[in-house]
Amino acid sequence: MSKEINDTIAALATPVGEGGIGIIRISGENAIAIVDEIFVAINERPLADRHSYRAIYGKIIAADEKIIDEVICLLMRKPHSYTKENVVEIQCHGGMMPLKNILALVLSHGARLAEPGEFTKRAFLNGRLDLAQAQAVMDIIKAKTDAALRAANGHLSGYFSSHIGQIREPLLEMIAHYEAIIDFPEEEVDAIDNIQVMEKIGELREKIKAMLSTANTGRILRDGLITAIVGKPNVGKSSLLNLLLRTDRAIVTDVPGTTRDSIEEYADIDGVPLRIIDTAGIRQTSDKVEKIGVDKARLYIDKADLIIALFDGSKELDDDDKEIIELVKQKKALIVINKNDLPQTIDESYIAGSCELNSIIHISTVKEQGLDELTAAIKNIVYAGNAIGHEGEYVNNVRQINALKNADAHLQDAIKGLDDEIPEDLVVIDLRSAWEKLGDIIGDTVNEDIIDEIFSRFCIGK
Amino acid sequence: MSKEINDTIAALATPVGEGGIGIIRISGENAIAIVDEIFVAINERPLADRHSYRAIYGKIIAADEKIIDEVICLLMRKPHSYTKENVVEIQCHGGMMPLKNILALVLSHGARLAEPGEFTKRAFLNGRLDLAQAQAVMDIIKAKTDAALRAANGHLSGYFSSHIGQIREPLLEMIAHYEAIIDFPEEEVDAIDNIQVMEKIGELREKIKAMLSTANTGRILRDGLITAIVGKPNVGKSSLLNLLLRTDRAIVTDVPGTTRDSIEEYADIDGVPLRIIDTAGIRQTSDKVEKIGVDKARLYIDKADLIIALFDGSKELDDDDKEIIELVKQKKALIVINKNDLPQTIDESYIAGSCELNSIIHISTVKEQGLDELTAAIKNIVYAGNAIGHEGEYVNNVRQINALKNADAHLQDAIKGLDDEIPEDLVVIDLRSAWEKLGDIIGDTVNEDIIDEIFSRFCIGK
Repeated sequence: MSKEINDTIAALATPVGEGGIGIIRISGENAIAIVDEIFVAINERPLADRHSYRAIYGKIIAADEKIIDEVICLLMRKPHSYTKENVVEIQCHGGMMPLKNILALVLSHGARLAEPGEFTKRAFLNGRLDLAQAQAVMDIIKAKTDAALRAANGHLSGYFSSHIGQIREPLLEMIAHYEAIIDFPEEEVDAIDNIQVMEKIGELREKIKAMLSTANTGRILRDGLITAIVGKPNVGKSSLLNLLLRTDRAIVTDVPGTTRDSIEEYADIDGVPLRIIDTAGIRQTSDKVEKIGVDKARLYIDKADLIIALFDGSKELDDDDKEIIELVKQKKALIVINKNDLPQTIDESYIAGSCELNSIIHISTVKEQGLDELTAAIKNIVYAGNAIGHEGEYVNNVRQINALKNADAHLQDAIKGLDDEIPEDLVVIDLRSAWEKLGDIIGDTVNEDIIDEIFSRFCIGK
Repeated sequence: MSKEINDTIAALATPVGEGGIGIIRISGENAIAIVDEIFVAINERPLADRHSYRAIYGKIIAADEKIIDEVICLLMRKPHSYTKENVVEIQCHGGMMPLKNILALVLSHGARLAEPGEFTKRAFLNGRLDLAQAQAVMDIIKAKTDAALRAANGHLSGYFSSHIGQIREPLLEMIAHYEAIIDFPEEEVDAIDNIQVMEKIGELREKIKAMLSTANTGRILRDGLITAIVGKPNVGKSSLLNLLLRTDRAIVTDVPGTTRDSIEEYADIDGVPLRIIDTAGIRQTSDKVEKIGVDKARLYIDKADLIIALFDGSKELDDDDKEIIELVKQKKALIVINKNDLPQTIDESYIAGSCELNSIIHISTVKEQGLDELTAAIKNIVYAGNAIGHEGEYVNNVRQINALKNADAHLQDAIKGLDDEIPEDLVVIDLRSAWEKLGDIIGDTVNEDIIDEIFSRFCIGK
């Protein structure tokens, strides 16, 4: 690690594709010198002579003296940069050839192609971000709703990490106190009241429990609530899908081709990213009679976090409906009765109480009625039990969840040990283990392999 | 036009997708004031107080005081910016939610969503770029090879426009001289030697002819040489395709999903963008016996600028081969004989002279032999007759070609008029028309509708 962090890395930092602007990012000791070899500023002054946080207009010149592109170089000297290293960002025209040529030129002048996440990894290794903050960078990029973005920002800003700190600090005090007693039994160290310590540890366990209680919500905000819309043909599945997707006409995703033909799409349900599966399947059939009936429903039941089971209120339940009711029994399914703008003939008593979530929601996809109720029901599932507080508190990945659970187990052991009056040096082992597990979350104590694994899942150029 | 150019516009300037960095670009009188309403710099100083060409780190804050993202703002005050207006670029994390939220916030504070090409249109209207330069901006973004990029850069740098100027200036002198004689017949204006003028016009026509002779090459460099690889099954079409595509392992396009499953792909043949059609069709069959035989060949013959007709040198010509030879007769087809690493049994005399391009090229896709010869043959077709000079000279779009042809026609009329000794004021009309047509190319005399039409084909954010 110490070896590779000394070299200078470069990568395309903007998404691949055609756009107005593309950026090549270069970070490392030689970033400025490398760019000075290929860049001629309009005033011909080298970047080496310029102050930090300057944007400098000029041209990138190839070895054969030909212009590759007009660019703006953004100079950020260490330590005030994303990586805390010297960073130069070259802003060129957002086409394949300028980007490819400039990147190739930078690499030929001594930079190395950055691995996925390597810029952020350096920001972490150089102490600009802790591990929870670094992981939040990708969560921001991948966020699908405002609530998800707020949660990720809560992590990036250090709000989440400060909660971990509020558990670790009292733990460290306890450990220090016990160790003082163990190391200097003759000295005048205040004796410890084990009962008080047990109470204190109990309080810390409550905090961990509170954090863990947000984990499901955090995961859903980050990854989306996998949702299947099931129902017999012609019940209004594609109309409901369109209504859900229309609630937030995304400016960015309106660009043709970005989400079309996708087999899943995200609907933003008041901040909850509903990841609706087989949307292509539902759409394909939208012009004719929808084909996705009981057979397909069966396929989705187990995949989904949430099932929206759709019934036609204007008709009596038929065998298909009853089969679907059988399927969703005991599952996390919302019973939704469509077409409440028509005279209702459905026998609700047959459905009522059939599945885990016992509320029935009435909607009309034609009149666009009942969506607020549906939204409220979905939010109730996602935030179940949790007040919608500061999303930045939410635990949102498996690594964090496991670390918290492990820390809690060690604290439980410590309480048991104290209760059993085992020797204090054994209690300290548990306390220290808990402290270390919590440290894994912010990267204080985590090992190199895990760090490598985490950053390898980042995108290139970040 | 004067109305809309006063407002402030904003758009996503980076390609749509997930990446390290995304940019929202804002241009117009209120760009700085708008960003100051939503951006808090790390040192809390507003952009309004900062110098131009500064990069400023800070946060974008929503109306509810919540952080939307950490960003860097790039401040470029008028007139030293891309549009010659006040420009702020907000660099945020390259995800959908930060970009969407920031753009929405900027729009809610008074900016208008930019139309495609509107930033470049303003650069043109404000006199930063002429029309040929402005059009080159999109050519740079869409360039598929180095030669195409150099051609586009030649246009952007003004090299191409200067050639137009070298024809227009002498024309304007002639016009002025004739008009002086016409307006002040009594004054002592030097008489004009019509023979000399005709010679001079002839020279200008030669220049126009030289420019027009580059048009085909320019178009191919810009749009690609539409190429069909045809041949009977199992002759090595997919192997040849792979070889051609492998000649330039693009760093940028290596990213998964960018070119896969495409029905056409670009191969970079020493600078010539070969736009190979139905590559997906060729690939699909690459593991088995290739299915694309005579039937498909027939489909492609008329679509393609170039046909690569592939034959198996190790076998005797069969009916399928002969049918393909029939098809490509009198067409722009290169006869390529594959498998020259095996004993040759093909009857070349049957093929020789069968099509317009009478050379036969021998290759081995297995041994990777003969590709240089194939490349040379392709370049010979593309640059036919033209020395590969400065690509910046090349005329590369239909509008420019038509303008040059029209200008030339007016000059021809002028010469004829002079020869017929028609009145000088009628000759001047032709000279002026030629001068105006040439002015269309650089946007000096072109009308508003054409300008709107040109920029509407740009991408958003440019």
